[in-house]
Amino acid sequence: MAGGREELKLLGTWASPFVIRVKLALSFKGLSYENVEEEDLYHNKSELLLKSNPVHKKVPVLVHNGKPVCESQLIVQYIDEAFSTDGPSILPAEPYQRAVARFWAAYIDDKLFASALQAGRAKTEEEKAEALKQTFAAVETLEAAFKECSNGKPFFGGDTVGYLDIVLGTLIPLAHVGEARFGIKLFDGTRSPLLEAWVERFAMMDAANAVLPEVDKLIEYSKAKQARAAALAAAARN
Amino acid sequence: MAGGREELKLLGTWASPFVIRVKLALSFKGLSYENVEEEDLYHNKSELLLKSNPVHKKVPVLVHNGKPVCESQLIVQYIDEAFSTDGPSILPAEPYQRAVARFWAAYIDDKLFASALQAGRAKTEEEKAEALKQTFAAVETLEAAFKECSNGKPFFGGDTVGYLDIVLGTLIPLAHVGEARFGIKLFDGTRSPLLEAWVERFAMMDAANAVLPEVDKLIEYSKAKQARAAALAAAARN
Repeated sequence: MAGGREELKLLGTWASPFVIRVKLALSFKGLSYENVEEEDLYHNKSELLLKSNPVHKKVPVLVHNGKPVCESQLIVQYIDEAFSTDGPSILPAEPYQRAVARFWAAYIDDKLFASALQAGRAKTEEEKAEALKQTFAAVETLEAAFKECSNGKPFFGGDTVGYLDIVLGTLIPLAHVGEARFGIKLFDGTRSPLLEAWVERFAMMDAANAVLPEVDKLIEYSKAKQARAAALAAAARN
Repeated sequence: MAGGREELKLLGTWASPFVIRVKLALSFKGLSYENVEEEDLYHNKSELLLKSNPVHKKVPVLVHNGKPVCESQLIVQYIDEAFSTDGPSILPAEPYQRAVARFWAAYIDDKLFASALQAGRAKTEEEKAEALKQTFAAVETLEAAFKECSNGKPFFGGDTVGYLDIVLGTLIPLAHVGEARFGIKLFDGTRSPLLEAWVERFAMMDAANAVLPEVDKLIEYSKAKQARAAALAAAARN
């Protein structure tokens, strides 16, 4: 970071897994930044957010020296490229390994994350069961991917944390909430013993621990959100 | 390409825009490859495809010295990184410009392409009208993006073709089919004068022209596909 003259501002909300993903990347790179919390993403988005991400109007946005970068995976790649001389590399150096990492990163968001979200939002038990089935199938596929990528080493990135560790790591707090609130264990010793061990290993790292939100706080947040949604639905029925 | 010992094999189908995207990248980089046409993607996928892309089982797959790379945008990025000393660069060199290019590339597939496909598959006139509305809104957004990225120059990539030219260029044949068959002009002079001119400019380049399929052939293919779908639907009703 050239002489400390770089200005990094992260627009987000503390509970968003996509924002946490960017915080993980910044933390592992050892970069300091100003955290700008959106107060009310549902009803009153900040002017800075609307100006910085006029297309999707979503967090996270990383504003670097006044220039906004959007979409969490792209932000992580940007951090890796723009701060290549700060801290460890996030993506592998070798083109084929980079392509493999990007492939699984897309899989994590498009399959695992999408199915898990669908399970959370399902309107019927049937829908929920189907979404959970897909979620667990995705976990099994990722377990095999971990075996292939890590090659017997502790992280997707090998001996050190890499792109996929950061991309998937952001799901760890959500997994804990799912287990505590609904008794659903995303990564368990039967289906995904390697990922179960990886979760422990990753979350215990200082750079991750400094950034991952407290599970109790997230559980309260999740309960309040559910109660608000239920109240809104009840009001709509009346 | 180290001493011509590289082996590149592209698994695809001639009409797939995602396959054409990879062909465009290979063509602009001046790379030669073996084209492996999937004979029947619907009923009988090749062993090589299933082995090379066991997760999604989809084309395109670029097999480089026996190692498969999947997902068209990731393949284009891979080609750029693995063959960095062959032909012109595809992605910009500067990290911020790279992030911007990746952002719009995702937008092209997730918004423009997805809406256009939805319009083509719509079951009712209402659904079709809504999907077309979203398609044209995406075109307008991309028109503004072109203005910003090209900065008065002929291509998204500036003076030469870059990542976004290749990512969007693959839609040009489909746009011609849409106009010829359904009278729907995707890029027109009112809504998107810059993109309308860009289409002409891009398609006329030798490297694009060598790869983009003939519109008449695509029209026949599109008609046959529609007839087959209608026959299947009729059979299902009986």
